[in-house]
Amino acid sequence: MSFDIKQFRDIDPGQRVLMGPGPSDVPPRVLQALSAPCIGHLDPTFLTIMNETQDLLRHLFQTENELTIAVSGTGSAGMEACFVNLVEPGDEVVVCVNGVFGTRMCDIVGRLGGKLIRVDAPWGKTIDPNAVREAVKGKDPKVLAIVHAETSTGVCQPLDEIKTIAGDAGALFLVDMVTSLGGMEVAIDKMGIDAVYSGTQKCISCPPGLSPISFSPAAMDVLRNRKAPVVSWYLDMSMVSSYWGNERKYHHTAPINMNYALREALRLIAEEGLEARFARHLVNHKALVAGVEAMGLSMLVAEGERLPMLNTVRIPEGTDDLKVRKVLLSDYGMEIGGGLGDLAGKVWRVGLMGHTSRRRNVVLFLSALETILKAQGAKIIPGKALDAAAAVYT
Amino acid sequence: MSFDIKQFRDIDPGQRVLMGPGPSDVPPRVLQALSAPCIGHLDPTFLTIMNETQDLLRHLFQTENELTIAVSGTGSAGMEACFVNLVEPGDEVVVCVNGVFGTRMCDIVGRLGGKLIRVDAPWGKTIDPNAVREAVKGKDPKVLAIVHAETSTGVCQPLDEIKTIAGDAGALFLVDMVTSLGGMEVAIDKMGIDAVYSGTQKCISCPPGLSPISFSPAAMDVLRNRKAPVVSWYLDMSMVSSYWGNERKYHHTAPINMNYALREALRLIAEEGLEARFARHLVNHKALVAGVEAMGLSMLVAEGERLPMLNTVRIPEGTDDLKVRKVLLSDYGMEIGGGLGDLAGKVWRVGLMGHTSRRRNVVLFLSALETILKAQGAKIIPGKALDAAAAVYT
Repeated sequence: MSFDIKQFRDIDPGQRVLMGPGPSDVPPRVLQALSAPCIGHLDPTFLTIMNETQDLLRHLFQTENELTIAVSGTGSAGMEACFVNLVEPGDEVVVCVNGVFGTRMCDIVGRLGGKLIRVDAPWGKTIDPNAVREAVKGKDPKVLAIVHAETSTGVCQPLDEIKTIAGDAGALFLVDMVTSLGGMEVAIDKMGIDAVYSGTQKCISCPPGLSPISFSPAAMDVLRNRKAPVVSWYLDMSMVSSYWGNERKYHHTAPINMNYALREALRLIAEEGLEARFARHLVNHKALVAGVEAMGLSMLVAEGERLPMLNTVRIPEGTDDLKVRKVLLSDYGMEIGGGLGDLAGKVWRVGLMGHTSRRRNVVLFLSALETILKAQGAKIIPGKALDAAAAVYT
Repeated sequence: MSFDIKQFRDIDPGQRVLMGPGPSDVPPRVLQALSAPCIGHLDPTFLTIMNETQDLLRHLFQTENELTIAVSGTGSAGMEACFVNLVEPGDEVVVCVNGVFGTRMCDIVGRLGGKLIRVDAPWGKTIDPNAVREAVKGKDPKVLAIVHAETSTGVCQPLDEIKTIAGDAGALFLVDMVTSLGGMEVAIDKMGIDAVYSGTQKCISCPPGLSPISFSPAAMDVLRNRKAPVVSWYLDMSMVSSYWGNERKYHHTAPINMNYALREALRLIAEEGLEARFARHLVNHKALVAGVEAMGLSMLVAEGERLPMLNTVRIPEGTDDLKVRKVLLSDYGMEIGGGLGDLAGKVWRVGLMGHTSRRRNVVLFLSALETILKAQGAKIIPGKALDAAAAVYT
């Protein structure tokens, strides 16, 4: 193999404005923590860092769950960790599907030999509790799973009623909070959630690579009383919890530096304060929507069902989706997301997650989008977006 | 929950000399790459970084295997990825066991419903090819798995004869190279290896968090012809390979910054040159052994069967294992590893991996150990170790 090392140049990814569906902009302090010297995974200093990370995660999840840790993989590993520990072959599992991530849950349940009970809603709409109630009738589900913040559509799912249905059916309530955690209220104890997973690269604004998860005592009971061993050694929480817990039993080598970064990102969140952080996400979201609508564009999701951190904007007819995103990236260094599945070419996914959720990004996005759409000859209302956004901040 | 964010201080892990079984010392350039700005996982710049990382991995593995990537988890995730993709329920799998990691392979095979054919050797010894030949007789194994560099014992396993046995039996040859990759010759195409996994935090000297793996065309055939879907969605290489390959189909969000760091660590390896790097590991290992033996201590593993990057030193009788390691850490900032399983309290595991494998670390370790053992009243031969080590370098 001919191989010239000189062709591989210094890392220089530039500096994007990350307004896609994640990763979001990472604050300098988090990058600095990430590059602290690596130490051993059983070093007393690292064990302290693990403990502190757990405390900070509990604060963010507003939980007292003992098993509250960062899985050594990305958000999808967290999803898999929840299902693989709680579902055994033959178990009935209700999965609510209104986007990519509900669909993925079904895929995982199938691989694990679970009996899938699927409840669908159109992409861009919330799951109807009545449909869930209907689906559960006469069944004995072990787990009822749903996505809180569907990153593929921008829908925010109300959880209260569905939690009650899960409870009445004797099912564990498993919730995907990959995109909501850190950007809106997620009080899992109060919300009655038994198993939850998230990701670091959305509203926590840490690079991707870890997945915060938490299991309630009821979920731990189910784990302890399994008939068969967890099919995944790597994600077996009965062993992973021994490493994060007081026993400190070696399981696998934790991603040391990623845990530094997560701890720092969580520290930033606690310093800002949860309420202030959630309010910040909300106001920037409202300003972005006001601007987009003033421009004559429309949102995919109905008012009242929108996520504050992920905005799905309908692409105006006759607009070249890919070209708009390409110009945003090349001329403004800004990343936004395209649509997935049936929504491909129909919506843009504009993230305002964590550190990205700032007024200057809202203004930059609206200004850039208007300029690009005008240049493309799209039918928009010019000159109104910035005032509409500004009005939200006053 | 009472919660005072002021109790969580700035990250300051200090600067260790990492001479345990991994992680090893991370070079400044790798930490710098790690903290480059995060960008999107589908950003053209990141896709180029992925391609380059694959090229650099192929160079290090000395392979042309298309599926040569970094799994988004630590070495144990890589182990699981190999087995979960290649083994289906009911498949016969030969696993050679002479330490912790062979034992872990058996655990994983059991979880996947494979029929385990286990070949044991005492910890600290190599696997006897005749025992493997015997075990395979009349069987139809799909996979034959073995550990190249047993990190729990320091044994280097010759692979040639066992590869032939696997081939004759029609089994895929699956090898754990977590600790060998980057520190000694690992030419997987030439060696006839079908599936291999490694870790980033050993001789590659990148922080933990990714697992380089490679599948031969024969392994890819087995993957493509599976009857059942891969039980792990996260580690399903038929999907992961579409993200790393030309299709660029979104699967999960790659750990962006960890991939920056891996690329930089691999670039450092290529700049040094494989031969020079392996020679460096060997000479430092020989110097350490010469010093240890001159001190009157002995090695667990017989000469000729030792790993160049992981030295298992017998703890002299009457020595307080934990105290020695504690003083090394507190007074010298140096981490070495203790023994695992039956070897707990009987050996120290002294790593000379990647960036750690330097003359100054050999000298520092020998000096510190001699001082500590003398202070503990251990029966050692003083004043000889440094000269013995120096002689190796001349």
